[in-house]
Amino acid sequence: MGPHPAVAAIRLAVRRVLHEVLLDARPEVAPLVIAACSGGADSMALASALAFEAPRVGVRAGAVTVDHGLQAGSGARAREVAERLASLGLDPVDAVAVEVGRGGGPEAAARTARYAALDAVAERYRATAVLLGHTRDDQAETVLLGLARGSGTRSLAGMAAVSLGPSGAKGPGANGSGDPAHRYRRPFLAIDRQTTRKACLVQSLPVWDDPHNADPSFTRSRVRHEALPVLEKALGRGVVEALARTARLSRDDADALDAWALEAQRAATRPDGTLEIAALRTLPPAVRRRVLRRAAIAAGSPAGSLFARHIEETDRLITAWRGQRPLNLPGRVEARRQGGRLVLQQANQ
Amino acid sequence: MGPHPAVAAIRLAVRRVLHEVLLDARPEVAPLVIAACSGGADSMALASALAFEAPRVGVRAGAVTVDHGLQAGSGARAREVAERLASLGLDPVDAVAVEVGRGGGPEAAARTARYAALDAVAERYRATAVLLGHTRDDQAETVLLGLARGSGTRSLAGMAAVSLGPSGAKGPGANGSGDPAHRYRRPFLAIDRQTTRKACLVQSLPVWDDPHNADPSFTRSRVRHEALPVLEKALGRGVVEALARTARLSRDDADALDAWALEAQRAATRPDGTLEIAALRTLPPAVRRRVLRRAAIAAGSPAGSLFARHIEETDRLITAWRGQRPLNLPGRVEARRQGGRLVLQQANQ
Repeated sequence: MGPHPAVAAIRLAVRRVLHEVLLDARPEVAPLVIAACSGGADSMALASALAFEAPRVGVRAGAVTVDHGLQAGSGARAREVAERLASLGLDPVDAVAVEVGRGGGPEAAARTARYAALDAVAERYRATAVLLGHTRDDQAETVLLGLARGSGTRSLAGMAAVSLGPSGAKGPGANGSGDPAHRYRRPFLAIDRQTTRKACLVQSLPVWDDPHNADPSFTRSRVRHEALPVLEKALGRGVVEALARTARLSRDDADALDAWALEAQRAATRPDGTLEIAALRTLPPAVRRRVLRRAAIAAGSPAGSLFARHIEETDRLITAWRGQRPLNLPGRVEARRQGGRLVLQQANQ
Repeated sequence: MGPHPAVAAIRLAVRRVLHEVLLDARPEVAPLVIAACSGGADSMALASALAFEAPRVGVRAGAVTVDHGLQAGSGARAREVAERLASLGLDPVDAVAVEVGRGGGPEAAARTARYAALDAVAERYRATAVLLGHTRDDQAETVLLGLARGSGTRSLAGMAAVSLGPSGAKGPGANGSGDPAHRYRRPFLAIDRQTTRKACLVQSLPVWDDPHNADPSFTRSRVRHEALPVLEKALGRGVVEALARTARLSRDDADALDAWALEAQRAATRPDGTLEIAALRTLPPAVRRRVLRRAAIAAGSPAGSLFARHIEETDRLITAWRGQRPLNLPGRVEARRQGGRLVLQQANQ
């Protein structure tokens, strides 16, 4: 008799990812894969599946749990989780305490601290990959949170199956190297939370329910416990899957449009750094706005302060020219039309 | 003292659209613009603003109300609405009875019958434009309904500000002419439902609340009365605006990607109608999938039966070739790889 279907599902998902890891790895060393584990059902299921599958394909398997220090007794909790992880046969297992800052709200600050700790552990052990336990339900929640921002296709792209960090970025790492030391991988993006719970239950793995997950002062918790159930009731049971599919399609669409914008920007940029109006005008609005956003950031506008209205106003210098005055964009960047060119330039240079 | 802010807002929105209509119209005749009016607050506000603004810019203004025959007394109701419209000074005013079929569910069937009637009225009077009273709230609901389908960026594009019919299609009309007799325009897509209600109230315009709008057996009604209020509670008051902004951005993105796919399809198609694998392989997945979808439809697959999994399987003939057998797509279309080409062909030709 094979394993319970829930256990079979989580193992298959991890096995597939390990095959990808092996394709990436240098053949001369057995790669190390680390599961990030909070002690909750999703990541305990992940750790158990990794512990089972890794030795079968010649991969070393470890785990790390992060103590955010936000609740009384969190240190003891982290040590307990680390013991459970070690008892699954994972090695190395680290419990890492972090200090959570205040930047960007409590959820963002905890995430920043967590990924910094995961990065450090992965570097220390020269891990090939760090696995994250995000499920299809987490993905659906992320898409809804992105929808609330209303900033378009990229904000609906959810979490990447493979990325270099929390942003979901692909490509060269922050250090500029094209060959990152490790990649984050999310084997469970097509698996629902119910399945991970069931897998822990039938494997008799104790799991810890983070009280933050049910705390309605957190936006994600409200999305999970209030918004999604009502959406399912109004729109039908397939909503979570539809949201997860939206993430995949939106990510591909955003990637394609970014690629187009990159090429269009190169083609429209003159040696002196100004942009040819004639080349911009013929682009579809979606591409032109991406080019303008890239150019404004390149000129010194901070990405986080650059809103749709800034880009739209800049766009009107191209498509609705009637002698407007230069615009002030965030970061002391001035946008002005000069003859047949668009000039984006930081003041006081 | 000027008009109440709500009245000023609806008039400004209609005035802007009338200016666009005048740019489109032939100069030798005063164009006729027709408001489609159910008798509800949104479309009564629309009709009142049209009656006020049209004569000021040399536009003739009429209205039409459609009796769907779905409720007892709907005929009398339609005549009453028509009288109210005529009393606003609109001329011509038509009340048109339609027979609602059963195709695609009750909401879709009513919509199909309604647009056919609006088309016929517009043709009869040679109207330049038909105005529809959809508000920002309707747009937000439409985006959520599209999200539930999970079929990507185009399904999040909501309703177009200017279109040839219910689908939001731009370009040549169904008759193949590039110069359609009339266009549908939605002046209120940036105005909230609250404002149209207020505008009717302060103008003492009686409005009719369609009981269908509150009937929880209709998906849109559940989205309006259950899903959106909970989403606002979970995600904040800006959700409706974020959804409407998502519609605009998604529409532009989908248009740009469709344009790319059209060009890529032309470039990859050989004189015998087959597609060059080498040309397809280098495209971003989002563009390649759109090319494959277009090609499958051109070969005879009905668009409505062609699902993401069909396209993904066809895509694997290009990106994951390991000697697969030919695929059967809907509409008896076969997809097969033959040398360096992809062949999409209907059986029994």
